Amino acid sequence: MASGDESVTIVGASGALGFGLALRLARAGVEVVIGSREAERAEEAAQRAHTLVPNGRFSGLDNGAAAAANELVVLSVPFRNHSETLTNLKGSLRPGQLVLDATVPLAAAVAGKATRMLGVWQGSAAQQAQEMVPDGVSVVAGLHTVSAGLLGDLDHALHEDVLLCGDRRPDKARAAALIERIDGLRAVDAGRLEMARIVESLTALLISINVRYKTQAGFQVTGLPDALW
Amino acid sequence: MASGDESVTIVGASGALGFGLALRLARAGVEVVIGSREAERAEEAAQRAHTLVPNGRFSGLDNGAAAAANELVVLSVPFRNHSETLTNLKGSLRPGQLVLDATVPLAAAVAGKATRMLGVWQGSAAQQAQEMVPDGVSVVAGLHTVSAGLLGDLDHALHEDVLLCGDRRPDKARAAALIERIDGLRAVDAGRLEMARIVESLTALLISINVRYKTQAGFQVTGLPDALW
Repeated sequence: MASGDESVTIVGASGALGFGLALRLARAGVEVVIGSREAERAEEAAQRAHTLVPNGRFSGLDNGAAAAANELVVLSVPFRNHSETLTNLKGSLRPGQLVLDATVPLAAAVAGKATRMLGVWQGSAAQQAQEMVPDGVSVVAGLHTVSAGLLGDLDHALHEDVLLCGDRRPDKARAAALIERIDGLRAVDAGRLEMARIVESLTALLISINVRYKTQAGFQVTGLPDALW
Repeated sequence: MASGDESVTIVGASGALGFGLALRLARAGVEVVIGSREAERAEEAAQRAHTLVPNGRFSGLDNGAAAAANELVVLSVPFRNHSETLTNLKGSLRPGQLVLDATVPLAAAVAGKATRMLGVWQGSAAQQAQEMVPDGVSVVAGLHTVSAGLLGDLDHALHEDVLLCGDRRPDKARAAALIERIDGLRAVDAGRLEMARIVESLTALLISINVRYKTQAGFQVTGLPDALW
């Protein structure tokens, strides 16, 4: 377990994936700022998280204040709120920050099937994010294939990979270092940010597999060397 | 090792993936008919395969005769030949046959990057195949993520999953039974044939990962039950 000298903001941590991530990271010693559209909801989520991880450090702020609070900002919102959230964050994000975008444009966002994807003009949610953040803010895509349910179930031992896409290797390494604070998650460099259109679609694929096998599946990449970063 | 009471046709087995598949299946006791556009090339491939798997049963035929020879036909051709091959097979395929399509519409087919996909109007190569085969012929998509190099290297122990997409569960089970004749390959039901547009794109994703880690990666699905079929 690491020393806990790191902190992260999670925008959308009142949702299942963001909340599970907050729990796991806090348990690993990372200070977590939970962002929500309303500060009250964020504070509630922080309190709820604290009940589940009593030695965790949580705070809750509205999205703008939360996004300004840390160098690393995880974006974990439903796709239907993705563009609006990024518009609202424009005044809060600053050059040098890294946004780790976990958003998946499932067709469920427009009442379609969760096994189908929406076509995003930029190619993927993460590329939409990269287009919308202020200059100097980097976007890395990741965390799409980790089950929110398993992440939030602290008794469940994780054993799967997180595929990261981004245009700068140091950004991906930074995101990887955060993700690998969580026991059982390994971060894999999946290529440039444009590969996010494939990696994001893995969520739809997993949902299809989950329906068939009544499980919460994940992915592992075989054949990789021991040192990935 | 099974008794070898099964036989399969591989259209495009002079290519690396099809050839590796022929070797592995023949070693497991499956009789393999290799199809190629020219019977001579097919016979050459069959002889080459026989040298590598001396107790394997191989024969080489032109695509039409090869496709008619077995109930199960694996299609493993470059995407640029996919439509033409299926047009030429129309007179040879008959109701009740199953086509296991491993074709991936990589942008490399039109001199683009191998980490990028072409948009296929039907959604995927496999859906294009389903549209083009005669009525009563089923299409299952699979085998996109198995490295041709590793498949052809008989000394390499495989340990990865094959994701199958198709609209009828019995068809997928039939394809799974064939695939699982190969030691180290597990077949996973990934959903309806329309999911092939995601599964096919995993090849591009693996190529991107392979470039970064100088390896031949594959995928495994975590969290599945023991009995998949």
